Amino acid sequence: MTDALLPSWRDGATRTAIVDFLDLVDEIPPADRVAVFDNDGTLWCEKPQYPQLEFMLSEMKAAVAKDASLGDQAEFRAILSGDRATLAEMGLERVVLALVDLHTGLTPEEFNERVAAFFASARHADRGVPYRQQRYQPMLELMDALRTRGIDCYIVTGGGSEFVRVVGEDFYGVKPEGVVGSQVAYDVARQDDGGLRLVRTGNIVASGVNEGEGKPTNIQRILGRRPVVAAGNSAGDAEMLEFAQSYDGPSLALIVDHDDAEREYAYESKAGSFEAEEGVLDMADRLGWVVASIKNDWATVFAGD
Amino acid sequence: MTDALLPSWRDGATRTAIVDFLDLVDEIPPADRVAVFDNDGTLWCEKPQYPQLEFMLSEMKAAVAKDASLGDQAEFRAILSGDRATLAEMGLERVVLALVDLHTGLTPEEFNERVAAFFASARHADRGVPYRQQRYQPMLELMDALRTRGIDCYIVTGGGSEFVRVVGEDFYGVKPEGVVGSQVAYDVARQDDGGLRLVRTGNIVASGVNEGEGKPTNIQRILGRRPVVAAGNSAGDAEMLEFAQSYDGPSLALIVDHDDAEREYAYESKAGSFEAEEGVLDMADRLGWVVASIKNDWATVFAGD
Repeated sequence: MTDALLPSWRDGATRTAIVDFLDLVDEIPPADRVAVFDNDGTLWCEKPQYPQLEFMLSEMKAAVAKDASLGDQAEFRAILSGDRATLAEMGLERVVLALVDLHTGLTPEEFNERVAAFFASARHADRGVPYRQQRYQPMLELMDALRTRGIDCYIVTGGGSEFVRVVGEDFYGVKPEGVVGSQVAYDVARQDDGGLRLVRTGNIVASGVNEGEGKPTNIQRILGRRPVVAAGNSAGDAEMLEFAQSYDGPSLALIVDHDDAEREYAYESKAGSFEAEEGVLDMADRLGWVVASIKNDWATVFAGD
Repeated sequence: MTDALLPSWRDGATRTAIVDFLDLVDEIPPADRVAVFDNDGTLWCEKPQYPQLEFMLSEMKAAVAKDASLGDQAEFRAILSGDRATLAEMGLERVVLALVDLHTGLTPEEFNERVAAFFASARHADRGVPYRQQRYQPMLELMDALRTRGIDCYIVTGGGSEFVRVVGEDFYGVKPEGVVGSQVAYDVARQDDGGLRLVRTGNIVASGVNEGEGKPTNIQRILGRRPVVAAGNSAGDAEMLEFAQSYDGPSLALIVDHDDAEREYAYESKAGSFEAEEGVLDMADRLGWVVASIKNDWATVFAGD
């Protein structure tokens, strides 16, 4: 029965570990059947750049085209001139907040429209396909297999909640309230007719970027359920995987290893903005996580449409 | 058809307004079909005391019975001696935080067990029934009628998320992630075996008590969807009702009016910890909200079991 559920997973220790877990789900009380998935690099491709960063850069270019003076802002000048040294000195957080601030004053609905327009037209820089085809087919099959056994699937991402929510249901079958991400702060504003609306600010809420220890604490705060399955690909997912693994019953902690330069990308999982002392593969080895090698374990990498 | 759905609602302008809205739901895109309900005084009875305050007082008494020195803490001494003047001077927030701090260091699971034990044994101070029978039957019927039309129902409460989540599914058919409340902050802690767990702190997260403007902003942040239906009973629900009412399409903003001293309680809806310059009934009149009079509109008040 399980064979039919994971057609893109090649036989081997990893697939066996997943199937073994699936066979144990009956032992987990229904209320505890919760799975959490990182998004960037776990459910969809995050190279050569995070899709959300692509979106924000495209928004910045459109804004500068309308108002050239915006290009004088230090962060944007560094981006536009490709000044990597200055960008590195500024740090990702400062650059991202400058980009987030481009949408200050928009309502959630206006922001969602921009994101939807991006996904409608954007193509992946290297593969030339829509982002929907950047989803990992084996991970979609894993979600299906879990749902078949009554496990609710949620997305827990370092990316912005609102950005991912726009495609969450279509791409992954996850409703907006099932997406836990980094959260922009909102202001309440009055319309001319007295009506109440929300507008985005340029700030991230105090709980900060949803990485590291933020993931388990935000899972509890926002979803109110603890996971028995967690999947990620970076050191920023480590605590979430440990949280699932600490469940007093069957659990599955899965790491996607980007080791396929031919079909996807080969890169060290601790690269990016999150600095770890220990690489995520060493962690996986030490803590007994299941590692999905894209090269060896996935017969197909990307979803067809 | 609608008659069969709201058997505990008496004929009249209020029932007609609800039925008129239900007849318009087809005009609302499915993704926008969202309803939010306040809990205390809207879905269940909040008198003579909030059920959560009952729980916390019972926890305090149990803690003092184990360790008498706890009774020397100023807030607890004032509670135990019924010193209303001192309690008023301290303010509800300080007293509540002292009670919240009783659970510092507990895991979410340990806290949930205490809440579940409370609901298993607690009886309402005046009616002597379990809290499950303190739910308002007409509001349960309204939730059913909305769900029949594809409207997802959520709870947006000033109470603690975790407290309400313990009974959310059983009492209201709302899963843990569908409960948006005031949120305690968590710490990540290591177990002796190296496993990761969460423990409660005595702090409320920076977004504060989930009242007033906090309700619409937390709805957006946590649920990521805007409501077309909102129901409440106090001035702390006003912004949430205005948010629903500002939807560009059919909407329903409903206020429960506690005007039935015989079957429930009669009290001014602005009473409690939230200070409003304008009573909620005056607001309803000014803004065109639908008012559900318990005395006149509800044939039955409480759910049978």
